Amino acid sequence: MYSFTCDYTEGAHPSILKRLAETNLQQEAGYGEDSFCTSAKDKIRKAIGCPEADVYLLVGGTQTNYTVIDGMLRGYEGVLAVQTGHIAVHEAGAIEFSGHKVLTLPQHEGKMDAGDLEVWLEGFYSDETYPHMVQPGMVYISFPTEYGTIYTRSELEVIYAICRKYKLPLFIDGARLGYGLASPAADVDLPTLASLCDVFYIGGTKVGALCGEAVVFPRGNAPAHFFTTIKQHGALLAKGRLLGIQFDTLFTDGLYLKISAHAIEMAMRVKEIFASKGIPFFKDSPTNQQFPILSSEQIDSLNGKVAFEIWEPLPYGRFVTRFATSWATQPEAVDALAALL
Amino acid sequence: MYSFTCDYTEGAHPSILKRLAETNLQQEAGYGEDSFCTSAKDKIRKAIGCPEADVYLLVGGTQTNYTVIDGMLRGYEGVLAVQTGHIAVHEAGAIEFSGHKVLTLPQHEGKMDAGDLEVWLEGFYSDETYPHMVQPGMVYISFPTEYGTIYTRSELEVIYAICRKYKLPLFIDGARLGYGLASPAADVDLPTLASLCDVFYIGGTKVGALCGEAVVFPRGNAPAHFFTTIKQHGALLAKGRLLGIQFDTLFTDGLYLKISAHAIEMAMRVKEIFASKGIPFFKDSPTNQQFPILSSEQIDSLNGKVAFEIWEPLPYGRFVTRFATSWATQPEAVDALAALL
Amino acid sequence: MYSFTCDYTEGAHPSILKRLAETNLQQEAGYGEDSFCTSAKDKIRKAIGCPEADVYLLVGGTQTNYTVIDGMLRGYEGVLAVQTGHIAVHEAGAIEFSGHKVLTLPQHEGKMDAGDLEVWLEGFYSDETYPHMVQPGMVYISFPTEYGTIYTRSELEVIYAICRKYKLPLFIDGARLGYGLASPAADVDLPTLASLCDVFYIGGTKVGALCGEAVVFPRGNAPAHFFTTIKQHGALLAKGRLLGIQFDTLFTDGLYLKISAHAIEMAMRVKEIFASKGIPFFKDSPTNQQFPILSSEQIDSLNGKVAFEIWEPLPYGRFVTRFATSWATQPEAVDALAALL
Amino acid sequence: MYSFTCDYTEGAHPSILKRLAETNLQQEAGYGEDSFCTSAKDKIRKAIGCPEADVYLLVGGTQTNYTVIDGMLRGYEGVLAVQTGHIAVHEAGAIEFSGHKVLTLPQHEGKMDAGDLEVWLEGFYSDETYPHMVQPGMVYISFPTEYGTIYTRSELEVIYAICRKYKLPLFIDGARLGYGLASPAADVDLPTLASLCDVFYIGGTKVGALCGEAVVFPRGNAPAHFFTTIKQHGALLAKGRLLGIQFDTLFTDGLYLKISAHAIEMAMRVKEIFASKGIPFFKDSPTNQQFPILSSEQIDSLNGKVAFEIWEPLPYGRFVTRFATSWATQPEAVDALAALL
Repeated sequence: MYSFTCDYTEGAHPSILKRLAETNLQQEAGYGEDSFCTSAKDKIRKAIGCPEADVYLLVGGTQTNYTVIDGMLRGYEGVLAVQTGHIAVHEAGAIEFSGHKVLTLPQHEGKMDAGDLEVWLEGFYSDETYPHMVQPGMVYISFPTEYGTIYTRSELEVIYAICRKYKLPLFIDGARLGYGLASPAADVDLPTLASLCDVFYIGGTKVGALCGEAVVFPRGNAPAHFFTTIKQHGALLAKGRLLGIQFDTLFTDGLYLKISAHAIEMAMRVKEIFASKGIPFFKDSPTNQQFPILSSEQIDSLNGKVAFEIWEPLPYGRFVTRFATSWATQPEAVDALAALL
Repeated sequence: MYSFTCDYTEGAHPSILKRLAETNLQQEAGYGEDSFCTSAKDKIRKAIGCPEADVYLLVGGTQTNYTVIDGMLRGYEGVLAVQTGHIAVHEAGAIEFSGHKVLTLPQHEGKMDAGDLEVWLEGFYSDETYPHMVQPGMVYISFPTEYGTIYTRSELEVIYAICRKYKLPLFIDGARLGYGLASPAADVDLPTLASLCDVFYIGGTKVGALCGEAVVFPRGNAPAHFFTTIKQHGALLAKGRLLGIQFDTLFTDGLYLKISAHAIEMAMRVKEIFASKGIPFFKDSPTNQQFPILSSEQIDSLNGKVAFEIWEPLPYGRFVTRFATSWATQPEAVDALAALL
Repeated sequence: MYSFTCDYTEGAHPSILKRLAETNLQQEAGYGEDSFCTSAKDKIRKAIGCPEADVYLLVGGTQTNYTVIDGMLRGYEGVLAVQTGHIAVHEAGAIEFSGHKVLTLPQHEGKMDAGDLEVWLEGFYSDETYPHMVQPGMVYISFPTEYGTIYTRSELEVIYAICRKYKLPLFIDGARLGYGLASPAADVDLPTLASLCDVFYIGGTKVGALCGEAVVFPRGNAPAHFFTTIKQHGALLAKGRLLGIQFDTLFTDGLYLKISAHAIEMAMRVKEIFASKGIPFFKDSPTNQQFPILSSEQIDSLNGKVAFEIWEPLPYGRFVTRFATSWATQPEAVDALAALL
Repeated sequence: MYSFTCDYTEGAHPSILKRLAETNLQQEAGYGEDSFCTSAKDKIRKAIGCPEADVYLLVGGTQTNYTVIDGMLRGYEGVLAVQTGHIAVHEAGAIEFSGHKVLTLPQHEGKMDAGDLEVWLEGFYSDETYPHMVQPGMVYISFPTEYGTIYTRSELEVIYAICRKYKLPLFIDGARLGYGLASPAADVDLPTLASLCDVFYIGGTKVGALCGEAVVFPRGNAPAHFFTTIKQHGALLAKGRLLGIQFDTLFTDGLYLKISAHAIEMAMRVKEIFASKGIPFFKDSPTNQQFPILSSEQIDSLNGKVAFEIWEPLPYGRFVTRFATSWATQPEAVDALAALL
């Protein structure tokens, strides 16, 4: 049975496993000071067009979010995110564990609206009691969002302009960054994205790696002692080579974007399959996650034949479902899905 | 040039890489619910003789220590450790970051003395102001310690008896557990160790894995909602298979102890090499870390020919150095070292 | 100029100052072990009809909220409150500072709706990903709420029944408790309130004291080592006598409720003054805070003659304002307000 | 029976109670924005000779320590203190609760030695693994110390020079500041002390007030948003007037130092009484706390006739005891003690 439940059902891109095996007995320093990390970081700097960038390789998404956010905020500050943001819902309170409130704005197809942001900030500072409240210290958005949607270049420009006006760093969660950039709907590339934020990360776990997220401070603007902060948050890998080798491979010969493009091609076929049957979507996603709305009967008829996720219940016995593709999705899996429907 | 700087200079045992490659495209659930994790946990339960044990697979040592400690302590509690304990020194304040004080006792060759522990506890509770102080909530020891030393069975029995008397869980940091158990000086095995504590972990990172530490609550005594605690501490790996495959391999056919024994064999040869030259040791270590005391001249003469670590300066131009072996140490490396001296 | 800006514009009830002076040089133990604290706690136990109650005297409201909440929650738990709850907005992130998320529900006239609560809890546990989210650990409501509204006995009963069903302790923030109990709309008294929650506090700061909030665990159900938790949160007063004398005085001869009743009498007169002029209210408050909606012109005409608070802007140049009375409000102040309008 | 158990057995200096009563019904703004706080802060700025100083009035000592320390440190930083420092022992882990390690140095009669400090810092930065450890972010000392001892001007100068060299702010805990400054052994006054640190506080609780500690950043160097930090730490008093009135009174006509001098006069008489009987002292304290060493028999003979504290047991049935005087100590109490011995 093929599974579309999520984008981390397989291991790693075979090139990564090959590199791991080839370099396995090469003795290297620990804690990210190995030659693979150095090389990977150089390639990432080149790919984003930021020779001055600070790059850190961490292990997982929640870990990366709370390490970056806690590392950049002062104790009295919180982070602004939309209500459906990953940090607001699905990280088991890691942000609060590190002492910070997630200040929530409404979501629009999973995205933050620049107007909402500006109104919130104006309202905050015009309320005389604002010193009694958590101070906004950072803006967090995801590219793509939880619903697979992506920001346009001009949307990012406006959000970033507001952030700069209020001196708030902008953090872009790129757990699925490749799938956003490879979308036909995307009008930003890596260098543009890097120029429109203060920190972002390039997700490896969901895009070809066994694990790993590359945090980028594009203008060499990492907080002081960020290495110590990483260690303190349990996010420092002893055998940093595991991360170095993976990102070095993903950023060799454009592999990262190539495999992302494959996932998107598969996703667009999945989308077309549902659409051609007249099945509506919960959100119009241009990336690797598709959210068709299915009835209980439709779900029952697929169960046991293809795996997918029930996302949330809707009234009248219908459900939002999720079908995710990835770098590893085989065309035969999509063919099988088409045949089933 | 051969390196003895630490026990994480290589990748993983080849069997692990082989398994990763063989299973790579098998679709599996995330977050530790894959079939490899299930199998690995079963094998660990068998190896320790605790069919009821709760087992969790985490990524790294500091992460494991602070997740277990914060997960088991109440907010007003601290953890007792010796002054040289890893959590007291080299974890960048991760324990304090999670809100807890490390209450320190003197170290004796890196170990905690049962007498010190009992005196401390008696003194604590006989001081009328004790409610104004951090309450002891757990005892933390390492096997082996930072100095490579190990506890005997009877030492563990006495410490654990005191812990039970004071209702304090005993936590054994086993980042290098294999190297302790495989030492000729060891009189405990895995089941015995499991019976003499409330929680311990089996270090993978330093003993054959790319990453990974297996936390064991031997009597099914994991704290409630420990999965959520793991996630909250950034310690949940999306592709749990990476950890599952590694521990499943390490606990197949006794691989974990076999490769540990190799490291110890190499370490004993290293020890003998230094001893035969009349070079003294800082501590008499029966495990994979050896701490010869070298003069500046001796260090200079080795530099560039073999890599090792300067551990700490002593008076009169002498230095404690560390030579570590591991599962990956090649006999030729030890031969080369012998030749150099 | 008279001020109605808030309910803490004056010092303390004169009886308190008198007692402070009379007892000033009596030597007493510190940290709440003085005879006044003992006496105050006994009187509180009597007033609430709970001879087994644990009572702790803390200094201020935010301090009390975060000490109680952090003291009762485990690290992976959050607290459920309405979006306008004091802990969710006006405590500068104290709850998050102590590591916990405030999980918010909609507010209805400032109150939590039992239906919302049950739906939220059912939804939470029926979502398979719930272990990835903050676990609900407590329910927080205020009596009266931020908008001056109060819960009826049956509303409290239903909320508490849901809490018990889900094993969640119910915490009632009583910063203005006296003003709620003394309201003509109230159908609960102190013993009833105490029987319908797991912990609550009796606000002193806003009801006659210079400072002080009495935390009550009605059935002797204080968390273990709560004294240490108080100290750890900076909430332990060295000269506990200051709190003991105040609560002892407030709970002698029913002073607490007597002065609360005065505040309500004044508030009802204020309400009638606005109502008789056809001025609408933002919320229909039966307690000491009244929220008339005034136009800019009305506000301008009052400025400089009487002090009050601008609460929030409404469209079309109108504003929610707040007029608060207290134990100290003089009838002449209300007369003056009436004359002005 | 007279008590010498501590310096907070009485209420407040009568002038304070008088001012509280006189101003009781004056309507004032909350949260420290009242006219008394403004006046008190001005008088403090004058007394310390720092017209630019930022002054904040908090409630208690532990609260002040952890609010200042957490407010000034970054997440990856710890605070250096001697092992007997109040923050290291008797604050129930408040510093760790806020996320920071207390890095301890040896104590010498309760004081930090400049040499120890410099050696520690040099050692820290010369250890290549220092990024894996908590970074030093602040130095904390007390004036007087836990043992009643005080620093000389030149000792403070050297410590402060080292702090500036390493860019570490120096924080002086002045819970008993008056008793230090009024000591015949003191060669610093308030302006000198203010010039030799980055932040200190003037203890009110133990020197004439019911509660209150005045935090001073002498050169207007308070951290950004310190008001919000105070609120977040539960340290903001709604009726700030209570603190304003007290410090305004204490800093009118030199009352603070006058009443401190009285305590010292009484302490010197106590010291002389013990010395004249040939009773040794644990530490030679020039301030209000005296630590005579008494045998069990001597303690028994005093019990029931005068109250004092057993500080710690010594071998051979002897005990360190503490006799504390304060602004409130009556000469008759000292006479009675003399008569008893």
